[in-house]
Amino acid sequence: MKITCSQHDFNSNLSLVSRIVPSRPTHPILGNVLLNADVDKQKVTLTSFDLSISISTQFPAEVVTGGSITLPAKLLNDIIARLPEGEITLFYEPSTLEDNPLFTITSVSGRFQIRAMNAQEYPELPVVTGQTLHLPPETLLQGFKSTAFAASPDDSKQVLTGIHLHKTADSLEFATTDGHRLAVGRQELDQITIEEELAMTIPVRAFRELERILLSNSQPSETVAFCFDDTQVAFEFKSQRLTSRKLDGTYPAYNKLIPAEFSRQVSLDRKGLLKALERMAVLADQSSNLVKFTIDNQGSKISLEVEAPDLGNAKESLPAVITGDDLDIGFNVKYLIDGLKAFTCNDVIVKLNEANQPVIFQPVDGHIVTYLVMPVQLKN
Amino acid sequence: MKITCSQHDFNSNLSLVSRIVPSRPTHPILGNVLLNADVDKQKVTLTSFDLSISISTQFPAEVVTGGSITLPAKLLNDIIARLPEGEITLFYEPSTLEDNPLFTITSVSGRFQIRAMNAQEYPELPVVTGQTLHLPPETLLQGFKSTAFAASPDDSKQVLTGIHLHKTADSLEFATTDGHRLAVGRQELDQITIEEELAMTIPVRAFRELERILLSNSQPSETVAFCFDDTQVAFEFKSQRLTSRKLDGTYPAYNKLIPAEFSRQVSLDRKGLLKALERMAVLADQSSNLVKFTIDNQGSKISLEVEAPDLGNAKESLPAVITGDDLDIGFNVKYLIDGLKAFTCNDVIVKLNEANQPVIFQPVDGHIVTYLVMPVQLKN
Repeated sequence: MKITCSQHDFNSNLSLVSRIVPSRPTHPILGNVLLNADVDKQKVTLTSFDLSISISTQFPAEVVTGGSITLPAKLLNDIIARLPEGEITLFYEPSTLEDNPLFTITSVSGRFQIRAMNAQEYPELPVVTGQTLHLPPETLLQGFKSTAFAASPDDSKQVLTGIHLHKTADSLEFATTDGHRLAVGRQELDQITIEEELAMTIPVRAFRELERILLSNSQPSETVAFCFDDTQVAFEFKSQRLTSRKLDGTYPAYNKLIPAEFSRQVSLDRKGLLKALERMAVLADQSSNLVKFTIDNQGSKISLEVEAPDLGNAKESLPAVITGDDLDIGFNVKYLIDGLKAFTCNDVIVKLNEANQPVIFQPVDGHIVTYLVMPVQLKN
Repeated sequence: MKITCSQHDFNSNLSLVSRIVPSRPTHPILGNVLLNADVDKQKVTLTSFDLSISISTQFPAEVVTGGSITLPAKLLNDIIARLPEGEITLFYEPSTLEDNPLFTITSVSGRFQIRAMNAQEYPELPVVTGQTLHLPPETLLQGFKSTAFAASPDDSKQVLTGIHLHKTADSLEFATTDGHRLAVGRQELDQITIEEELAMTIPVRAFRELERILLSNSQPSETVAFCFDDTQVAFEFKSQRLTSRKLDGTYPAYNKLIPAEFSRQVSLDRKGLLKALERMAVLADQSSNLVKFTIDNQGSKISLEVEAPDLGNAKESLPAVITGDDLDIGFNVKYLIDGLKAFTCNDVIVKLNEANQPVIFQPVDGHIVTYLVMPVQLKN
């Protein structure tokens, strides 16, 4: 193999794939990236795979001799990132028949040689040959951004560490829950390529890498090819491809949790509420994260209160448009901050029934998002 | 006590003093800052003290009622930093005779109350009444920047965790050593206010806070009043004051370590050498940090080489102006990177004798700095 390409191209593509490479791989080859050079296409492909998620990316290069090899991801990344801009040449002699041939990287500054591993030892990437939906990048980005925060970060929670996708006739619904709160975002689909209903759960981690891929491409006008079979999904966008295992298990019937009717509604400035909660959190952090909301219909305001025994207390008021009776209700301040940060709207609507019943937060900006949190019981 | 001031003034002054407040104080009062309001001067003073270093800062405020109180530094900082810009009012009622009175902070957004502690319990600040030198801020900043990196970060090394100051008739010398390397920077003094020779060692930590104070003031035209007695030093600059204990113990006679003559000299581009060493360090990090320099007089170049068994190797060459014979010599790559980063010059001069004798690095930009490192023995 011998290739010449720009340091910038190699570096940016390598950064994109190497983030999922584990720092302490269970097997040495899983700490490597796969480098493939295609002499006919004059293209180089970089691939990483942690047995659950794979990322491949392709870029043009001058391929003098083709071939495949794997290289330690972190070491390669650290070296390439520090090379001066300009042309770099990468090569090794496959004739040596060694298991760990020396791989050479030259630039104007000098020469690095690192130990490679044969490509034959690299695990097979999943082949996904199923139905395909063509989606605008914005649909996936928006669905991810408005829900990812409410998934569980705890690996033992399995299906709850994912984003549940539910495709109906004309929309794609994204849902996450960690058992304490629930975020649901609905994206309208303009072109329906598959009529039937579909449901699957994809790890948040895979979506996070997909977000990086979609954001790293400056022209978002093209569509993402989203392909899936019984166990795997694949997203293809331009010269990048991401595959992921689906998460097994039945996803909770979350729509049943969202009340159909509400007796109270509060509309107020999202940023003002967020800033106030972030101040409140300084004290609430030190106790049980509890913040008390007092809805004052007559005064057209909401008061927020935190009481941290031995430390202090805080009280703020915010103007609000209120329908329904007055109410005192408690929340976990962190949950509210997470949700309000994920919204991008100016105003947020809060819909409530009683102090022990689920409350939902919705943005007022055309995005169809419902964030449900369970209130916390107030002490007396 | 009752004061009104701008959130910005209170916040920036509080940030300046609260960095030295320990996160886990040995006594609760040491986790607090002292707040003093002077009704005659219409000024507020904030003070922090960790029993070794103290920082005080003063700013104008509308002082309705004067007084002193101490407040939990981190909590206060977290709250004030999050308040909206504009006027804030702070007050408490000393009449309550409580040990932990409630201290109230109001802003347009609402009201915070936090538990305070009486100022009587706050430890006495050291009084420093000795000789005073008046120094330009640049003298202290430059002396600190060019040497601090070579002091020991290990508290058990006592006097080696400090910067040694040595004042001669017309200059102030800054020196640091961790036992493996030595940095010496000399600053000319224009106005000699004290004729006699002086020597003392001041913790790097105190100098780091002094640097922040000097950099936080936009007009560096004024001088710093540097006052010292047998055990303490004080730096006063505008409305800020820092005191520190001196470090006990005899400082090593470092000037004896610097060879008087050198048989070889190499001059080369500092940034080019630094970048090459940073690339080399990726591999050297994985073995013993050893980088080999080959001085090639005939070829007017220096070659750098790293060999990391099982991982790979690297070789780069840099053009250099060389006097003296060829030489192979080994260095700890991290030590060289530290020194070259602290310099700001374009070119650096390396002066050497044999491969087992001390080597010095000096900037070519008018700053009088000597960085001495011991070579590492090459294998073979």
